Amino acid sequence: MDKKFAECLQACLDCMKACNFCYDACLKEEHVKMMAECIRLDRECADICAFAAQAMTRNSPFIHQILTLCAEVCEKCADECAKHDHEHCQRCAEACRKCAEACKAYIEE
Amino acid sequence: MDKKFAECLQACLDCMKACNFCYDACLKEEHVKMMAECIRLDRECADICAFAAQAMTRNSPFIHQILTLCAEVCEKCADECAKHDHEHCQRCAEACRKCAEACKAYIEE
Amino acid sequence: MDKKFAECLQACLDCMKACNFCYDACLKEEHVKMMAECIRLDRECADICAFAAQAMTRNSPFIHQILTLCAEVCEKCADECAKHDHEHCQRCAEACRKCAEACKAYIEE
Amino acid sequence: MDKKFAECLQACLDCMKACNFCYDACLKEEHVKMMAECIRLDRECADICAFAAQAMTRNSPFIHQILTLCAEVCEKCADECAKHDHEHCQRCAEACRKCAEACKAYIEE
Repeated sequence: MDKKFAECLQACLDCMKACNFCYDACLKEEHVKMMAECIRLDRECADICAFAAQAMTRNSPFIHQILTLCAEVCEKCADECAKHDHEHCQRCAEACRKCAEACKAYIEE
Repeated sequence: MDKKFAECLQACLDCMKACNFCYDACLKEEHVKMMAECIRLDRECADICAFAAQAMTRNSPFIHQILTLCAEVCEKCADECAKHDHEHCQRCAEACRKCAEACKAYIEE
Repeated sequence: MDKKFAECLQACLDCMKACNFCYDACLKEEHVKMMAECIRLDRECADICAFAAQAMTRNSPFIHQILTLCAEVCEKCADECAKHDHEHCQRCAEACRKCAEACKAYIEE
Repeated sequence: MDKKFAECLQACLDCMKACNFCYDACLKEEHVKMMAECIRLDRECADICAFAAQAMTRNSPFIHQILTLCAEVCEKCADECAKHDHEHCQRCAEACRKCAEACKAYIEE
């Protein structure tokens, strides 16, 4: 397993975790209304990250296309999460940006 | 494909659709706070229904256990959705109950 | 739900079914070796079709990108299945082509 | 995040990876026919492990039931993989057993 593959896989799994933690935390916030887009994008991003991790580990012939999509979803989720001051949102934004970069680094290899 | 298999598969797919429509509609409601549990259970239920539909069609050796779990999740989601007057919640509750029954009918066959 | 949305969603679900049936049937064939690529692509295609159906029904903001990917996977799976004379492969190839077309028709709408 | 939660989550992710690596390697083996059950169970096991990891991180209300199912699938996959001398099968069997134990340790907590 080469270094960029391992880093990208780990970034996808870390991002899945951060997005799902943020999703759960957003659903428990007092002002859920203002977190609605964050909840929606957290699910989108967790789901594509989990899908990408499965695809990478099964040696999918479509890994470049899947990681391109994953990077785009991560960036959109990071943009939304970054708007909110909650610690779970800030951590999620960071995990999303790191994952988007790792996906792009692997694709361009 | 026997009748109970076909009915159960269709019920899982219909329930996945109804839960995801309800999830999207709940996120757009004015009072998102009171829909938080509904949003959470809609995702849980859509995900297990999609998982069950995949498992049924690939002839999974674990189909009985998966459908047992699916029926339980559907019942919990139906209970939550039934509390809300929104049409999307009422429709979702109905699809969930139908799916729970179809799963149980298939298992007991 | 407009007509092209409904047709695309149904095509994704039909394709998921056909791919999983073909996957199961290929694993039971006498000459599994020559079915290896078919097994691999059936799983790829069933998984992206299930993912797309979930994304469509939850009103994902990434539906165009997801359906673009889905159409590409369907075409590759159709090409592989079409090489084999088994009825399950021929039916799968047909479901894949139909799904690729429905995805493209919906995107271009 | 408590210790047993973290161990169980990591075990699910490690098992997903091992199962998907084994699945890919089995499809490339000379004698695919004798690996058919291994291929089938690898997919079953990778899919439920990925599902469980998503459920754990989103704080699913059904985590006990999902991990009970996950442990059972892991044990069946371990039994099948243990029959084959390939290194990828032996490693997969080990990851599956570890995951089954971690799931049970977390449930019984």
